[in-house]
Amino acid sequence: MKSSERPLILVTNDDGIFAPGIRVLVEEMMAFGQVLVVAPDKPQSAMGHAITIHNFLRLRKVDFMDGVEAYSSTGTPVDCVKLAVYHLIKGRPALLVSGINHGSNLSINILYSGTMSAAVEGALEGIPSIGFSLMEYGIDASFEHTREVVRRVTRNVLGNGLKKGVCLNVNMPAASTGPIKGIRVCRQSLGSWEDAVETRMDPSGHAYHWLKGDFKSTDAGEDTDVWATSHGYASVVPVQFDMTDHGQLAAIKAWDHAL
Amino acid sequence: MKSSERPLILVTNDDGIFAPGIRVLVEEMMAFGQVLVVAPDKPQSAMGHAITIHNFLRLRKVDFMDGVEAYSSTGTPVDCVKLAVYHLIKGRPALLVSGINHGSNLSINILYSGTMSAAVEGALEGIPSIGFSLMEYGIDASFEHTREVVRRVTRNVLGNGLKKGVCLNVNMPAASTGPIKGIRVCRQSLGSWEDAVETRMDPSGHAYHWLKGDFKSTDAGEDTDVWATSHGYASVVPVQFDMTDHGQLAAIKAWDHAL
Repeated sequence: MKSSERPLILVTNDDGIFAPGIRVLVEEMMAFGQVLVVAPDKPQSAMGHAITIHNFLRLRKVDFMDGVEAYSSTGTPVDCVKLAVYHLIKGRPALLVSGINHGSNLSINILYSGTMSAAVEGALEGIPSIGFSLMEYGIDASFEHTREVVRRVTRNVLGNGLKKGVCLNVNMPAASTGPIKGIRVCRQSLGSWEDAVETRMDPSGHAYHWLKGDFKSTDAGEDTDVWATSHGYASVVPVQFDMTDHGQLAAIKAWDHAL
Repeated sequence: MKSSERPLILVTNDDGIFAPGIRVLVEEMMAFGQVLVVAPDKPQSAMGHAITIHNFLRLRKVDFMDGVEAYSSTGTPVDCVKLAVYHLIKGRPALLVSGINHGSNLSINILYSGTMSAAVEGALEGIPSIGFSLMEYGIDASFEHTREVVRRVTRNVLGNGLKKGVCLNVNMPAASTGPIKGIRVCRQSLGSWEDAVETRMDPSGHAYHWLKGDFKSTDAGEDTDVWATSHGYASVVPVQFDMTDHGQLAAIKAWDHAL
């Protein structure tokens, strides 16, 4: 098969182009097609769906891996998708994959996640898109046990396609919890964060603040991503971008709206 | 009524604490309760649901308006909500309002919008929350014609409450299109951006890139926010944060998931 006949696969992440997780993802994608990497030049975790409109962006070609064209960008994960689609490719890739994130993106964390926002941006562009996350934060996390899940989900998406406007949120348990038992298709759990603000004093005596928090899994349903991953499975959540609460339309229409 | 008996209303935005829109919103909120302002110290448009985890935050008390306690923050709109709830208030306000944004947040733009992400963060925290946006970008935009809509929606939310986890996305036509005809409760339209990247050369001969784009309203339904606002109405969309595509669960469960 000539290189030009292979499907083009766009790879990005939010931990930055030098994170180990993106290398594993690129290695796996090379079996499926021609790989283009466009990823942030520094960690961009928790950037959500941010895009850069008050500043310009730089793109730098980087030496990444044999046979892979790769660029680092000064922007967010969503910026990387836009730069790839509208500047580098000038068209849609056959597939967009984001990750493998160092850390989970379960439940409502999809809203904060740069990894998943890149996948949602792919869905907005009509590109079949998948975000992969490993439930382990460290730079030295082991990704070997995730490879078969990555391959299996990718093969299914390329083979079956995804409904337009839908992407997948895939979370995989850490290696320390044993081999992954299988894949479960789930709904997003509806937990919440119990946050805190830690205030410190700088050497000049001025206060500064760190956000911190603990995720509370208050939605224990066996059909959720939190349940699946805490029971040894990889979770796959189909994600869409209509945030309307259709069930609330009637109640709010009944209000008094006279001006 | 003593000040301590009045409901506490948290006001934030994404255009920064010095934008005219937030002043109009605070003026209106003072009729409903005790107002606390926590807003970014600089424009944070298009920051989406970004939060600051790799850096600390500063909070600075600012002279804003008689009778209003106000702080600027170095963070994003969502950071402002977290700083208010977990550091300044150490509890939930009775209401969170965000805006009035200089520029529309219709359709899928809720994903990119700092204004609406602050409201969604409020919903995640169980706070009745409303994002207000004016469909005019300029610093000298007129907000006078929006005051009655702001009052009416606020009165309804305080009087009727909102289902837990739901916030409202309110968009209001520009003054130039005439008086606002009324309020319509809508679903989020499903348009998309036709983006472009404009590449320029710096004086040293290195390329830099600006994102730009045009919103394409490809979803013309009369039940949408785009239809309502383009026909002279203010739109109110109830917004929730479950991004699961429940309709796709069965199709994806039918894939071959064997590992």
